[in-house]
Amino acid sequence: MLSLFPETAAVEDGELVVGGLRASALAEEHGTPLVVYCEQTLLDAARAYRQAAPNALALYSLKAFPSVAILRLLAAEGFGADVSTLGELEFALRAGIPGERIVVHGNNKSGEELRAAAEADARFVVLDALDEVGQAAAAGVERALVRVTPGIEADTHQAIRTAHHGSKFGLPPDQALEAVQAARTAGIDIPGVHLHIGSQLLGLDAGLETIDWLGGFATRCRKELGWEPTVVDLGGGLGIRYVEGERAPTVAEFVAALLTRLEATWPGRPPELILEPGRSLVGRAGLTLYRVGVVKRASDAVTYVAIDGGMSDNPRPQLYGARYEALLANRADSEAIASYDVCGKHCESGDVLIEGARLPETRRGDLLAVPATGAYTLSMGSNYNAVPRPAAVLVRDGMARVIRRRETVDDLLRHEASS
Amino acid sequence: MLSLFPETAAVEDGELVVGGLRASALAEEHGTPLVVYCEQTLLDAARAYRQAAPNALALYSLKAFPSVAILRLLAAEGFGADVSTLGELEFALRAGIPGERIVVHGNNKSGEELRAAAEADARFVVLDALDEVGQAAAAGVERALVRVTPGIEADTHQAIRTAHHGSKFGLPPDQALEAVQAARTAGIDIPGVHLHIGSQLLGLDAGLETIDWLGGFATRCRKELGWEPTVVDLGGGLGIRYVEGERAPTVAEFVAALLTRLEATWPGRPPELILEPGRSLVGRAGLTLYRVGVVKRASDAVTYVAIDGGMSDNPRPQLYGARYEALLANRADSEAIASYDVCGKHCESGDVLIEGARLPETRRGDLLAVPATGAYTLSMGSNYNAVPRPAAVLVRDGMARVIRRRETVDDLLRHEASS
Repeated sequence: MLSLFPETAAVEDGELVVGGLRASALAEEHGTPLVVYCEQTLLDAARAYRQAAPNALALYSLKAFPSVAILRLLAAEGFGADVSTLGELEFALRAGIPGERIVVHGNNKSGEELRAAAEADARFVVLDALDEVGQAAAAGVERALVRVTPGIEADTHQAIRTAHHGSKFGLPPDQALEAVQAARTAGIDIPGVHLHIGSQLLGLDAGLETIDWLGGFATRCRKELGWEPTVVDLGGGLGIRYVEGERAPTVAEFVAALLTRLEATWPGRPPELILEPGRSLVGRAGLTLYRVGVVKRASDAVTYVAIDGGMSDNPRPQLYGARYEALLANRADSEAIASYDVCGKHCESGDVLIEGARLPETRRGDLLAVPATGAYTLSMGSNYNAVPRPAAVLVRDGMARVIRRRETVDDLLRHEASS
Repeated sequence: MLSLFPETAAVEDGELVVGGLRASALAEEHGTPLVVYCEQTLLDAARAYRQAAPNALALYSLKAFPSVAILRLLAAEGFGADVSTLGELEFALRAGIPGERIVVHGNNKSGEELRAAAEADARFVVLDALDEVGQAAAAGVERALVRVTPGIEADTHQAIRTAHHGSKFGLPPDQALEAVQAARTAGIDIPGVHLHIGSQLLGLDAGLETIDWLGGFATRCRKELGWEPTVVDLGGGLGIRYVEGERAPTVAEFVAALLTRLEATWPGRPPELILEPGRSLVGRAGLTLYRVGVVKRASDAVTYVAIDGGMSDNPRPQLYGARYEALLANRADSEAIASYDVCGKHCESGDVLIEGARLPETRRGDLLAVPATGAYTLSMGSNYNAVPRPAAVLVRDGMARVIRRRETVDDLLRHEASS
């Protein structure tokens, strides 16, 4: 189980310790629910990308967890940002990411977003539709990639498959060529293409198949347009382990496989590469601490352990049927002897975070730690039931720093009409 | 299609008008996405409840859409509030709802929430677990109901079924009796029980079956405990129509059926009734206006119409597979000749609001109106992709009033660490 947690996780005196800090001390000082990020795990993942592809432009896909503090840490490692809205662009700029390390995505960018991308002098805007070419030119965009959909079905949840034909993203090959041509005619520099394989990939096949396809597409570009892509943005996609028994490629394995295949199949000198990891940077670095409240035998088959958060801080179980495991942080060396359904505090039966979690006998006041919650949790969180969203802290060498303040009920009421 | 919209909806000069205001004027003044609530529709639904059950305590289940302005309107009609967290309680108090018209729910109330309920002198706290009895007594709670799960399977999405055995809510009958006894021993006044049938019910059967069951349970209470419930809180549950062809009971039909059956099956003088509607008050009253951006042919089978919102303002399609329809608000009398998938602007393939929406030929700049979005949309909305949540306005007689301010990117950045 500990292998699902950040690298610095250990059990000391029966208690979970991360970044040199006891779970109970973190919970006491910062309250629960609390998302705890381990700086070491984050930096190690970032460095693994830089080491595996030193010449690639590495961008943090900040939708996984938009955080100015984490962007700054990654920027210091040479990372830029992949953004897809005005808000995400603002997070990147606030973190001091220079425009040349920002790529702007989005299947439906507003005029305001395109103008902001041009003003920020973003490295590339990624054109996602034929009629966006004119919009981008009018907004002052000078450099762009075209997003193409190769029509490959990645083995992942259908909501996060993105490269199949019929996706709302990108353009089928014929239209992509048309967009390249139109953009060049409109005076936009188009050095290459973007394509994205999927998300939470636990194997290499879809990535390799994409690269194979890309080689053929590049040849077609040369023959039909007399144009050769010299930049290839492969997006992100590398998955992480959420539960024991699951396997995922390492960053080194994933990137090396793509690079090797690209070298083998690309017609000519290999293109400049852009990578956009999100989940594989922050996913394992984060864990969530919850305080246990009600423990209830609901039927012969089900006993609930209720936590002080739920679908408002982590809606992945509701959105994707995502599975998690949990560790009793304050009795981390007790034997797991019972099976519990871990539910949240929201007014909804479906607000169940984990079905059948193996835990020691669990009581009110216990502290539950759920690993691998660093990506697509808080970033997709809500205020359902007027529940404020949790704080996030970054831990390292026995020190914790708040990187995202806990919301208050007053924050929620701030948007109400005053009279 | 217009019958899915608020009562004041009409088409004038080819354009959708609500509350006497043109959709285009609303979009221009308040921006898009915009959630528009029709005051008349809301008040008519509220009055239908009051008329159908004049002696019942009617509570707005504010999780459907927490809004101080809407709570005030409903309070003027005699409504109170059903709340389930500290935040929801604060919304109710801010709207001036007196404690005697507040019932406090929750499957995992914190000590702070129980103390706040006691301080607000809430009409009832609804006890949801055996070990909550001691917690409630310690927090100073003086009056409570016990939530019992009759074990009835309502015909609705499994995430919002709540009355089956094995639900995280309430107590199976044996444990409920035990909780009644324990609470009385602890000095808490227990005048009755709460039970909840489900959500988005489109028929009467589950409700009637629950009432039948309740009569037997009341008899069992008298025989085993010498205690008779004199208050019955039936929760909410009445559904609304989301798409054409769907049928839902009217408020009058739904409430009359429950009352008649309660009179027929209750052993003795019928109890005081509490009703907790949410969706059936605000669901149809609300519609969402979106601006169309990209229109893209993604495959032979699918053409996308992309809107400037999506799963951040309405995650019901992703959470429940919810279906919607749409009207082209600026050409509302044009014939629907094409089928489009209406997708949002979020970085996720699953961000599709409507599959196969029938619309006239749709172009960039068009205004799309989606009916029946007043409940469980904004209240479950997120800031995914750092997208600020929309504003909500209340319309009546040609006047619009902002009841929820549009979020800004600065609002999202406010929680970031400053250094």
